Amino acid sequence: MKKIRLGIVGTGIAARDLHLPALKQLSDKFQITALASRTRSKAEKLADMIEPRPKVLDSYDDLLKSNLVDVIDITVPIHLNPEFIQRALNYGYDVICEKPLGANMKQARQVLSSAKNSDRIVYIAENFRHIKAFKKTRELIESDKIGDPSLLVWHEVNLAGKDAKYVNTNWRKDPKHIGGFISDGGVHHIAAIRQIMGDVKSVTAIQKTVRSYLGSTDTLTANFVFESGAIGNYTVSFGLNTKYNPKKVIGTKGEIAFETNERLILNVNEGESIIDLPEENSYKNEFDDFFDVYMENKDNNLGNVFEAAKDLAVIEAAILSAKSSREIDVKDLL
Amino acid sequence: MKKIRLGIVGTGIAARDLHLPALKQLSDKFQITALASRTRSKAEKLADMIEPRPKVLDSYDDLLKSNLVDVIDITVPIHLNPEFIQRALNYGYDVICEKPLGANMKQARQVLSSAKNSDRIVYIAENFRHIKAFKKTRELIESDKIGDPSLLVWHEVNLAGKDAKYVNTNWRKDPKHIGGFISDGGVHHIAAIRQIMGDVKSVTAIQKTVRSYLGSTDTLTANFVFESGAIGNYTVSFGLNTKYNPKKVIGTKGEIAFETNERLILNVNEGESIIDLPEENSYKNEFDDFFDVYMENKDNNLGNVFEAAKDLAVIEAAILSAKSSREIDVKDLL
Repeated sequence: MKKIRLGIVGTGIAARDLHLPALKQLSDKFQITALASRTRSKAEKLADMIEPRPKVLDSYDDLLKSNLVDVIDITVPIHLNPEFIQRALNYGYDVICEKPLGANMKQARQVLSSAKNSDRIVYIAENFRHIKAFKKTRELIESDKIGDPSLLVWHEVNLAGKDAKYVNTNWRKDPKHIGGFISDGGVHHIAAIRQIMGDVKSVTAIQKTVRSYLGSTDTLTANFVFESGAIGNYTVSFGLNTKYNPKKVIGTKGEIAFETNERLILNVNEGESIIDLPEENSYKNEFDDFFDVYMENKDNNLGNVFEAAKDLAVIEAAILSAKSSREIDVKDLL
Repeated sequence: MKKIRLGIVGTGIAARDLHLPALKQLSDKFQITALASRTRSKAEKLADMIEPRPKVLDSYDDLLKSNLVDVIDITVPIHLNPEFIQRALNYGYDVICEKPLGANMKQARQVLSSAKNSDRIVYIAENFRHIKAFKKTRELIESDKIGDPSLLVWHEVNLAGKDAKYVNTNWRKDPKHIGGFISDGGVHHIAAIRQIMGDVKSVTAIQKTVRSYLGSTDTLTANFVFESGAIGNYTVSFGLNTKYNPKKVIGTKGEIAFETNERLILNVNEGESIIDLPEENSYKNEFDDFFDVYMENKDNNLGNVFEAAKDLAVIEAAILSAKSSREIDVKDLL
């Protein structure tokens, strides 16, 4: 089978801990042939982990000019995504880029425009679009298991401690991306929520900063009105911790609780049933899907830039709402 | 011991199922000497349950003129509270009145004014002020068990079914009190929340009507900013059901989860500890407290009209916020 020759730019946590393990499982489909990083030593270190060893280049420009790769995998600080995507497209490369697509909606619109004006693939790597439990939840709703889905509760209160690896990334300590961890982590949650409930129409939110070392707002509680007419509460914190984060859709005839990526609990009048799903690596699913999009012209639904922009728009709406004390219409940001 | 001679006006669910069982346990302190109801047959039925049998009077006026009672216990449809309180005060009676103090803040202000212009006791019976677990939670916070209390989560999603007794009260089917069950039930929750977190400064909320038979909005999710700087989410529904309603305060060093009125779970770095509290009848505690206020000039803190007004103000703020799509300052309603 023909492999995709992948050039990775940015050799931080995402490249090393998220993309590389998945790509190693897909060695029949991908070969990492080149790496580039601002810090050459980091790229060398990552290259040492890869067999066959990719070529380490001195700069992104060198990578783009190298003729060693078919596709650019972008895992750089968030605010550099729009520029790095555009530069890859300028050279005629197809692109897979780690979420979020930009630091804010202004940047997201740049990416939308770049993608629109190019015939190349722009695939936003949002691994939460590759977790089957969300799709399964949607299917249960569509098969009318819980009646009219009316209220969503989605809590993600998980402390990012001072020693956590993501906290100690320099560009995350002084984030140029809106809301810091709230957007960096939050777009995942919104991707999950939108897969289950459909689009968010409007948002009202309040926020609080609990830990100064997180560089931005770290706690937010947001109320959503969905296009469907359902409502919901999304509560997220990287500055606080809790034992149990409820995640559920409550319908007129029952509810689906999302316990883990591998376990749903369906609770209806007839009783409770546990739905176990196979363990999976969502990053592997993601690159598998990208392979099909690249090789087999599969529709780019799961890496769609517009979907990624909508995820970020909900987060930006929440932050704007918290700042302005009013309801924000998500459409106004797209 | 001298007993309080109690005259109950309104002989519905609150009188029969909430006040009477508590008063029976306090037969050394209270004697129900007279009853009045719009429907005489209902009053007769209630009188049959009481030993010695109280006198049944034809009207509230007859009760007020009867010289049979020391204190009036008001358990009438909510929107009648201000008028019934004022009439009792006009006759020089001390009053205990079931919550909420009025149908909306306009009515609440009437009650505040009535109480201010009288030297009689106006005691609002909010049994959630007599549940020790809330006070205990506050004590744990004040002894710095969980650090700075930063985020409150308080969910009360409990379906009021078509056959539920409260649903089948005529005045509840077509409620004159704001938000129907949302205020009738919601003031309890706010009383709990305010005991734990202190006053609510501002509210943003959204709402939804799931069941038309409930006569009003039945589902609401509200974000609170507390005077302390903490934030929180309060989600309430009488139109939906869920298996588990999280109720917790998350602090910078740990959290307190409120499992039941008799069980708190304190979760801190050092581990988890379960705090069990004795079972109690909060209505009995309430009348016990009223007795002390009446007989021993104890300060009327727990039945304080201004506290009851603040509870209702938070609910009204939430409903106004949901209608206006903007943040409402609770103080503006007081």
